Amino acid sequence: MVTDAQQACFEAGIKFGSLYHQFAGTPVSPDSAESLERAIAESIENQPFCESVTVDIDADALADAADDHGYVELTGRFMDVEMRIEYADVTVRTEMAMEDGYPLMRLVGVE
Amino acid sequence: MVTDAQQACFEAGIKFGSLYHQFAGTPVSPDSAESLERAIAESIENQPFCESVTVDIDADALADAADDHGYVELTGRFMDVEMRIEYADVTVRTEMAMEDGYPLMRLVGVE
Amino acid sequence: MVTDAQQACFEAGIKFGSLYHQFAGTPVSPDSAESLERAIAESIENQPFCESVTVDIDADALADAADDHGYVELTGRFMDVEMRIEYADVTVRTEMAMEDGYPLMRLVGVE
Amino acid sequence: MVTDAQQACFEAGIKFGSLYHQFAGTPVSPDSAESLERAIAESIENQPFCESVTVDIDADALADAADDHGYVELTGRFMDVEMRIEYADVTVRTEMAMEDGYPLMRLVGVE
Repeated sequence: MVTDAQQACFEAGIKFGSLYHQFAGTPVSPDSAESLERAIAESIENQPFCESVTVDIDADALADAADDHGYVELTGRFMDVEMRIEYADVTVRTEMAMEDGYPLMRLVGVE
Repeated sequence: MVTDAQQACFEAGIKFGSLYHQFAGTPVSPDSAESLERAIAESIENQPFCESVTVDIDADALADAADDHGYVELTGRFMDVEMRIEYADVTVRTEMAMEDGYPLMRLVGVE
Repeated sequence: MVTDAQQACFEAGIKFGSLYHQFAGTPVSPDSAESLERAIAESIENQPFCESVTVDIDADALADAADDHGYVELTGRFMDVEMRIEYADVTVRTEMAMEDGYPLMRLVGVE
Repeated sequence: MVTDAQQACFEAGIKFGSLYHQFAGTPVSPDSAESLERAIAESIENQPFCESVTVDIDADALADAADDHGYVELTGRFMDVEMRIEYADVTVRTEMAMEDGYPLMRLVGVE
């Protein structure tokens, strides 16, 4: 027996895992950060029950970390993500942000 | 307010999204299916709260779909996955299998 | 002993393999195709010696193939790519397009 | 006009870019390094003209870098790769190793 709230949380997790492992490793620079933010958000919003995705890539952090070629491979340390999932009557709010050097994905609210 | 069961379901979803989007697209043939099954399972079992992962790649389906070079890119249509997540006192069982041509990830049980 | 032309061709290959395996599997729909085209191009242009990348995702083909949720996972059958690599005095032109159902990456010119 | 040697170098580059961007980001620990090495090698060996791939993941470096959960996401800093490509009468030897903190892919020989 699975409740709608549990299913909604499962769906939220799928989106986070998808987002992270699809796009981690992408070459990104301060100049290309904006197009990548938009593409990630629009891509994951295609998935079922995913109402909105906001991706914020930290261009300053990219600039600090960039190699001699001016870019880095995207990891969680360079981006914050917020997501809203709607399943049946349940709305789940989630976010990913750095915590102790680890990109922590967490449930912010289940309503 | 998030319950342990909801958190456990969120964690289960993360693992599924990770598994799928990390490994989709991997070149795979009947001969290399076994090493890929094992690597996928052991990789995702590294993630927090993930107690066991079983991946079954369908070598016959690979053989049927293989191109002239003898391989395909891995997609959900070629694999079944089962996973057990343990968070606090909650055990979540999940699986991915094809349903109507779509690789459906679902919660089997939350206990 | 490696010539500049050989090195330029090696660099061109790296960009193609990177592009394909970074972005294959990305959820994409007719509506999100444009942002993904731009993000792929700008991302790969970050790589060394990569002067220009053009990505054309076929929105009609996406619409035909879309599942009940209105999207597909990106594969080579949905996109054409052109790339120009410049290494030392050598310019390499490459493209990826479908040939016999297989996304063929090829060298168009080495000058 | 493209020579066989140039084509062989292009093929070699494709394999390196594929390998890197398919598997970068994979969760890996000292215990799971061996299965991942084998799966990466067997996967890329499926690709056309790719005669052999050797992947060496540095378990000590993984252990040093592992987070509280005991794993890291795979990047070039944790692995050395050697590859042999054969196209027509040309053999290309390539390797990837760290140089100045950047995972450098290079042509070792074209014969």
